[in-house]
Amino acid sequence: MVVCLGELLLRLKSPGKNRLLQVPFFEASFGGSEANTAALLTALGHPTSFLTVLPDNDLGRSALGFLRQSGIGTSLVALQPGRMGLYFLEEGALGRPSQVLYDRDNSAFALVDPEWSVSLPEGTRWLHLSGITPALSERSMLWSHACVQRAAQVGASISMDLNHRTKLWKWGQPPEKVLPRYLGHVRLLLSNETDLHSALGAPYEIIDPQNPEGSLRRNAERLFQSFPSIEALGVSLRLSRGAEDNSWAGALVYRNGDLFFSRTYSLLPIVDRVGAGDAFGAGVIAGFLEGMSAQQTVELAAALGAIKHSIPGDVCLVQRDEVERFLKDQSGRISR
Amino acid sequence: MVVCLGELLLRLKSPGKNRLLQVPFFEASFGGSEANTAALLTALGHPTSFLTVLPDNDLGRSALGFLRQSGIGTSLVALQPGRMGLYFLEEGALGRPSQVLYDRDNSAFALVDPEWSVSLPEGTRWLHLSGITPALSERSMLWSHACVQRAAQVGASISMDLNHRTKLWKWGQPPEKVLPRYLGHVRLLLSNETDLHSALGAPYEIIDPQNPEGSLRRNAERLFQSFPSIEALGVSLRLSRGAEDNSWAGALVYRNGDLFFSRTYSLLPIVDRVGAGDAFGAGVIAGFLEGMSAQQTVELAAALGAIKHSIPGDVCLVQRDEVERFLKDQSGRISR
Amino acid sequence: MVVCLGELLLRLKSPGKNRLLQVPFFEASFGGSEANTAALLTALGHPTSFLTVLPDNDLGRSALGFLRQSGIGTSLVALQPGRMGLYFLEEGALGRPSQVLYDRDNSAFALVDPEWSVSLPEGTRWLHLSGITPALSERSMLWSHACVQRAAQVGASISMDLNHRTKLWKWGQPPEKVLPRYLGHVRLLLSNETDLHSALGAPYEIIDPQNPEGSLRRNAERLFQSFPSIEALGVSLRLSRGAEDNSWAGALVYRNGDLFFSRTYSLLPIVDRVGAGDAFGAGVIAGFLEGMSAQQTVELAAALGAIKHSIPGDVCLVQRDEVERFLKDQSGRISR
Amino acid sequence: MVVCLGELLLRLKSPGKNRLLQVPFFEASFGGSEANTAALLTALGHPTSFLTVLPDNDLGRSALGFLRQSGIGTSLVALQPGRMGLYFLEEGALGRPSQVLYDRDNSAFALVDPEWSVSLPEGTRWLHLSGITPALSERSMLWSHACVQRAAQVGASISMDLNHRTKLWKWGQPPEKVLPRYLGHVRLLLSNETDLHSALGAPYEIIDPQNPEGSLRRNAERLFQSFPSIEALGVSLRLSRGAEDNSWAGALVYRNGDLFFSRTYSLLPIVDRVGAGDAFGAGVIAGFLEGMSAQQTVELAAALGAIKHSIPGDVCLVQRDEVERFLKDQSGRISR
Amino acid sequence: MVVCLGELLLRLKSPGKNRLLQVPFFEASFGGSEANTAALLTALGHPTSFLTVLPDNDLGRSALGFLRQSGIGTSLVALQPGRMGLYFLEEGALGRPSQVLYDRDNSAFALVDPEWSVSLPEGTRWLHLSGITPALSERSMLWSHACVQRAAQVGASISMDLNHRTKLWKWGQPPEKVLPRYLGHVRLLLSNETDLHSALGAPYEIIDPQNPEGSLRRNAERLFQSFPSIEALGVSLRLSRGAEDNSWAGALVYRNGDLFFSRTYSLLPIVDRVGAGDAFGAGVIAGFLEGMSAQQTVELAAALGAIKHSIPGDVCLVQRDEVERFLKDQSGRISR
Amino acid sequence: MVVCLGELLLRLKSPGKNRLLQVPFFEASFGGSEANTAALLTALGHPTSFLTVLPDNDLGRSALGFLRQSGIGTSLVALQPGRMGLYFLEEGALGRPSQVLYDRDNSAFALVDPEWSVSLPEGTRWLHLSGITPALSERSMLWSHACVQRAAQVGASISMDLNHRTKLWKWGQPPEKVLPRYLGHVRLLLSNETDLHSALGAPYEIIDPQNPEGSLRRNAERLFQSFPSIEALGVSLRLSRGAEDNSWAGALVYRNGDLFFSRTYSLLPIVDRVGAGDAFGAGVIAGFLEGMSAQQTVELAAALGAIKHSIPGDVCLVQRDEVERFLKDQSGRISR
Repeated sequence: MVVCLGELLLRLKSPGKNRLLQVPFFEASFGGSEANTAALLTALGHPTSFLTVLPDNDLGRSALGFLRQSGIGTSLVALQPGRMGLYFLEEGALGRPSQVLYDRDNSAFALVDPEWSVSLPEGTRWLHLSGITPALSERSMLWSHACVQRAAQVGASISMDLNHRTKLWKWGQPPEKVLPRYLGHVRLLLSNETDLHSALGAPYEIIDPQNPEGSLRRNAERLFQSFPSIEALGVSLRLSRGAEDNSWAGALVYRNGDLFFSRTYSLLPIVDRVGAGDAFGAGVIAGFLEGMSAQQTVELAAALGAIKHSIPGDVCLVQRDEVERFLKDQSGRISR
Repeated sequence: MVVCLGELLLRLKSPGKNRLLQVPFFEASFGGSEANTAALLTALGHPTSFLTVLPDNDLGRSALGFLRQSGIGTSLVALQPGRMGLYFLEEGALGRPSQVLYDRDNSAFALVDPEWSVSLPEGTRWLHLSGITPALSERSMLWSHACVQRAAQVGASISMDLNHRTKLWKWGQPPEKVLPRYLGHVRLLLSNETDLHSALGAPYEIIDPQNPEGSLRRNAERLFQSFPSIEALGVSLRLSRGAEDNSWAGALVYRNGDLFFSRTYSLLPIVDRVGAGDAFGAGVIAGFLEGMSAQQTVELAAALGAIKHSIPGDVCLVQRDEVERFLKDQSGRISR
Repeated sequence: MVVCLGELLLRLKSPGKNRLLQVPFFEASFGGSEANTAALLTALGHPTSFLTVLPDNDLGRSALGFLRQSGIGTSLVALQPGRMGLYFLEEGALGRPSQVLYDRDNSAFALVDPEWSVSLPEGTRWLHLSGITPALSERSMLWSHACVQRAAQVGASISMDLNHRTKLWKWGQPPEKVLPRYLGHVRLLLSNETDLHSALGAPYEIIDPQNPEGSLRRNAERLFQSFPSIEALGVSLRLSRGAEDNSWAGALVYRNGDLFFSRTYSLLPIVDRVGAGDAFGAGVIAGFLEGMSAQQTVELAAALGAIKHSIPGDVCLVQRDEVERFLKDQSGRISR
Repeated sequence: MVVCLGELLLRLKSPGKNRLLQVPFFEASFGGSEANTAALLTALGHPTSFLTVLPDNDLGRSALGFLRQSGIGTSLVALQPGRMGLYFLEEGALGRPSQVLYDRDNSAFALVDPEWSVSLPEGTRWLHLSGITPALSERSMLWSHACVQRAAQVGASISMDLNHRTKLWKWGQPPEKVLPRYLGHVRLLLSNETDLHSALGAPYEIIDPQNPEGSLRRNAERLFQSFPSIEALGVSLRLSRGAEDNSWAGALVYRNGDLFFSRTYSLLPIVDRVGAGDAFGAGVIAGFLEGMSAQQTVELAAALGAIKHSIPGDVCLVQRDEVERFLKDQSGRISR
Repeated sequence: MVVCLGELLLRLKSPGKNRLLQVPFFEASFGGSEANTAALLTALGHPTSFLTVLPDNDLGRSALGFLRQSGIGTSLVALQPGRMGLYFLEEGALGRPSQVLYDRDNSAFALVDPEWSVSLPEGTRWLHLSGITPALSERSMLWSHACVQRAAQVGASISMDLNHRTKLWKWGQPPEKVLPRYLGHVRLLLSNETDLHSALGAPYEIIDPQNPEGSLRRNAERLFQSFPSIEALGVSLRLSRGAEDNSWAGALVYRNGDLFFSRTYSLLPIVDRVGAGDAFGAGVIAGFLEGMSAQQTVELAAALGAIKHSIPGDVCLVQRDEVERFLKDQSGRISR
Repeated sequence: MVVCLGELLLRLKSPGKNRLLQVPFFEASFGGSEANTAALLTALGHPTSFLTVLPDNDLGRSALGFLRQSGIGTSLVALQPGRMGLYFLEEGALGRPSQVLYDRDNSAFALVDPEWSVSLPEGTRWLHLSGITPALSERSMLWSHACVQRAAQVGASISMDLNHRTKLWKWGQPPEKVLPRYLGHVRLLLSNETDLHSALGAPYEIIDPQNPEGSLRRNAERLFQSFPSIEALGVSLRLSRGAEDNSWAGALVYRNGDLFFSRTYSLLPIVDRVGAGDAFGAGVIAGFLEGMSAQQTVELAAALGAIKHSIPGDVCLVQRDEVERFLKDQSGRISR
């Protein structure tokens, strides 16, 4: 059982390439980094449970239905008074970037009772969370940190996706102060080419996706020195030539210095890039859970992230056999 | 110039008769009691200006565009950091009621600086607001009360629509404590058959729309005694036989005891009942501004409210000549 | 073979009950009185051919596809340079009437060459047209009048639906001057409760649909006196209590004074009332072509008109066996 | 635990009031009598599990997601090769009836292995099925009959909704031959005003919903004599004045002759009448499971059926507290 | 007159790039290889007639309307009891392939009476069919084979598009056994780069679209030796770099060894690749019918296939003059 | 204050990549070259006013609302009887070009009274128009020419975008006769790579966007000689490799021979290319109004045109700070 901890959001997207409210409709779906990872882990065959607070209203109940539909366990979901976290999304095109407008302050999740002492279910092997949760509020930081400690105590592996979001982190303390408390428990750290630099500060370098090896190694070395619990660092590498035109690959660095790169995907035109990193993370976690080789793991993770770019919404809606076929053939020939 | 003060909301409605998130879309539009009244007053030929705070983001800027499109003056709109007030709407059918899910806590409007001292434009003859504003937050109460005082000082008439909302009023003080501070300045009070009772308490009676006269007169008498500035009370009278099957009429009571009823409209099937009271209010205000007779005024107001039931969205999108034709002929025969 | 002569229009309707351009979409379909009648006659089993001019562009070619799809013969359709006739439609609700905004001036049809001498196909038993064609332009009047004369010469029966449209008739001559030239050839005249009065003037009375007999008889008598070719007058009788709440029936008066009424349908809520008169006309024509009894004819015609109110678009999309079932049972019980 | 046995269908509905393929879109949702009942029982607070065969393809997997989303247990769902059962739906209006076009022959469910010996989960108190399953194929008849026998053996109560469908029953044997084998095990029989007559033949009378008592009592007496296991007969009573204009009520007859009627609901305009009988059935079953009084039971059942008419789709998407409010107040006043 | 024989399908496509049922809608249209070819041949100016069986229900009648709208003759269409053949389509993106889910077993077409002896209309110069028809059922194989024999007897040219579909061919015999019976009558054989290999087995090679000449010549030689009636082999050559990123060209080989290549089109982003091969086939047939040169023929065919990639749906909706302009200019500059 | 003179059109676009009326919907928006420029100038911070005639009907009033929403002044808009100018748009893909079908003959604008003597508002620094207006009708030519003369008299700068449209210019005189009357007053001339050649004839060369300098210099020289008032020539340079695959850049030539090129943008896949030239023009005008350097001006103009390709509709909906960011970074990385 993998427990994923995080906030589930209602995503409200302007249709097609329209600017926000250019046409009077929103496409609604649910998402959020940790839920995206949970849904994909479930689809890959790993039982998951989602640990969160949802508002006790019609939006929260719909969100709960989404988790159930995805096959994610919901026994750790608390329905509390409060509001649903929202995010408005405008899809970019050409050189115009996608825009995320967060509207999640004071959500039921952000107002979680820090004293809520969650009992992790028996058989919890893994706890996954992201750097978004401590960014939201002091309460969500305190509570999630306690959850991590408890999971570590019962012997669960901890994975964390740094997932740095500049528009969050408004509650008082900066990430470089807060995150180390988590990293001391983490076994697998996930990030993208800029996360370490943005979240933990200047000693960490931004990785050039076209020439990643040096900075990647230096970042990993520094990380492994500072946080002895970390076994491996998974990094998604995106080169953005335009909102719909990216290169995409993954890397995996181990404490012993071994470094593995996936093949590189050239993605044009991208359908929806949100959630690609979460899909990458699900792949790395699945590799660990299944005892895959490092090369297999990074290839699976990168492939899942690549596939995510072809699917609307936050979640990488894909089945295991599709992924296996994709790993062998990316020609996209019609199946009939 | 009529200044309308209030919060503009982004309305997110489930399409058709679907329950919230039954289908993954929202129809988006802007509305809010005072803006609805402002838009209709403008359409009827009265220059208006909207006094509000909107968030300084893409949602707030779209809201501003809505006001401009409606022909409402926007020189009194402040763009401030914060969030947009939202409301989710699920349309009822048969005996299943429409549901409003407010998500407007901590909006840029609710967090208005109480010290913001607004300069009303020259030529401001009238200030309109509703009981929703003091319900939202202490800040919006303090600020709006100061605006009312200032308007009264410069000789503007004040109209207030009680618009009682049970789901609001969470900031600390109850309406019966707060509203009298406003009513001391009000010239025209607007309400529906239950507002006075719900907002100001038991001495006021709920009006039976099928037999309104007695309770209406008693309510009015009590009101005129308590608040000497009030010249007239406009009341919309709705009998709800089902979510889409209502009767609708209006009444107007003057301090001298004169009581005028409009004709009664039988409405089935209703397209959208939100904003009917705001349309009624616009009609009464227009009657006052144009010096119509009381009977003409209440007929105009009730007709506007009736027409609103046939139009999707919060706003009664109608032109003056259409209203004139409607007052003469409600047969709905196609025009070609 | 029934030849139907008239203009085919592209109809652009605001979705649902929205006011024109309230939402930025139009539902597009094809229609027009005579095409509506042709489509239904075809569905009832009578071969038809449409005689018209369409613009030689993508819109005209789509219109041609619509005729073909409906099974209507297209060998009499001329593609000419020019524009497509359009009409914008806003659907009414409650007491707010539906609005038709014609945009058909200078269409390829209105600019038809009056000298175009159409060869009616062998086997043409019937020519149907409406009062809309002479209303459009002098050219369409001259040309259609010549067509009527030619059809009469080859022994075809002529039916005409008066279909008076106040918003048309702008080219110079009034209907009461123009229409008699047609009526001298007509065998079957179709109209609604106001058409004769509006198109031919005061001596003709508006018929009260709740008490139709007297005025109907007087109108018919006057008509039969003036136009000896007319054998029968078919009249649809609509009582409008609201845009979606009508009563509907039909009457048929013969030269010998025999008068037949259909049953009366109570229609609430109406889906789309446009084209109901055209469906009524198709029913009367079918009755004549099939030698039905007068009572059967008027019942068929009224039923078709009633059914049309339940179907979106201009055309009464119904099959013969459905009509037969409807004539026996209007309970609307689900069929499964 | 209530086990519901039946086929889950993909419903493809023409949008709005459009005739089938009048516009090139289908609204897709899942439904089917027994799944509708299961979903509502779950929403009312009773754990359920769905016993069915779904095709092992993307449609079947989506159907499985629908069950999970609804909170229905899926451990008894078998994924087998084959096709998804479909039904096409055209919504009626006025006197034009809704049309169901079944396309479910040779579905994975209809081809169920009759030898599939299902292990009912521990704690199975109740098995619910409908007369649709034996109508589909000999295989589904044989298999479902065996399931009923097994459930009876383990002491579960059996409820059956006759749900007669004229368009089915094509595999060879007529319902009056087949159904008695089931009825010998049934504790609670559900039906509408015509089911007994249509499914079991002439000795049973069609019930006049406006004067139901006599025929209802005679039907019940005959039924209780023939099938000693039946404790009660629940009957939904619909009077159809038009596709969107019905009266609706429920009755409950007990073996001792006690007869209970619910209040009667006048329903206009109906949103979606499909699934109302299934909602009625869920209400009766819930009444039995909760030990409600007979009057409470029939009122709950009829209310759920009435509410269903206001909700698009097959399923009565309602929460328990909404039902409680509805039982007290059907005015449909907006909640805000 | 070109007679096209095959099954017409209702295509149900998930909107945009959504996975099947990710959003609850389907876009509905009609298509099928031979109908696609017929529609385009008609648009190019060649009279066609479609020879098929459609179900005698609302779906079949809509399909008939589609044929009429396309200008295809329908006198050879039989309406029979049965079901409509369906296919569900999920559009691929990037490396995720489009998915076709066939649901056409036991369709009215698959159940065609093998004894149905069709009278080909006078003036039938050409009969076109595809390898899909014999793949569907033994009945459709027997019947279509008889049709081919009859057409050959009356001197019509036969063209066949191999159109190999791995997901079909389930009725018992493999394609390499069945197809040779047809090929003995064929004058023009159409295929893609893999069809010959997949359908007729290993001696035929898969053609590498980037280096096609060798294998193409060897395949052709083998084919011409085995089937003396075949005059020419048309081959569409697709290189798939991703679901939306293909290269596309055509080749034409004659019995005398002459080999002609079209120019190569680089297609990114593809709108809808379904039906491109059918459009290619229509081009080759049109070239033969019009006596074009081989080079002109293959250029026309490849251009039509290229254009198809830019048009949603199965059918290449294009007019002759557009094709002529496209052959001269593929810059895609806006025309205004 | 910048006054923009031109016709505002209702644009009716087929959804997505569908051919015209392939699906029965149109996306409706407002646009037109000069209004597009006005809207963007307003968004960039320059007060504008639109000088036009709109029809006095619901379409014209909606158009007025669009102008207001965009923040454009409407005091110079005349509502007159007549029709709304329309254009139908079909979006191209791959080598299939976008198609514009104009339906603007006899619009209220085309029938403007040539004697309408407009009073330009005080503070009018600039008048902008395009070559479309004189192309529409003799009346619009005479009137707009008088407007230009008047603006020149009051010292306003005149900019003109040649915007040559082959499908217009049907009223009698060719552009090369008409346009010089305007060019004698123009300070800033805008055009694309073919406009000068198409509108003013052979001495002007078509500019090769891949090697523009020579022809650009020769064109400019000729122009500056002929029209001494022209200070600068702005040229947008588009290379079309396909409907969605273009290169885009801008050039600016001054009377003194100075020539400035912007960076070149590679655009794939284009969202909507309509209005890119208008956005380019707005950028050049803004550069002049703000006294930017030539290089800054041409970079701003080209960037605005590039951004326009990423936005649906006619108008470049962008804010100043977005443009500034875009000038620094075109990577299109998501902002969150």
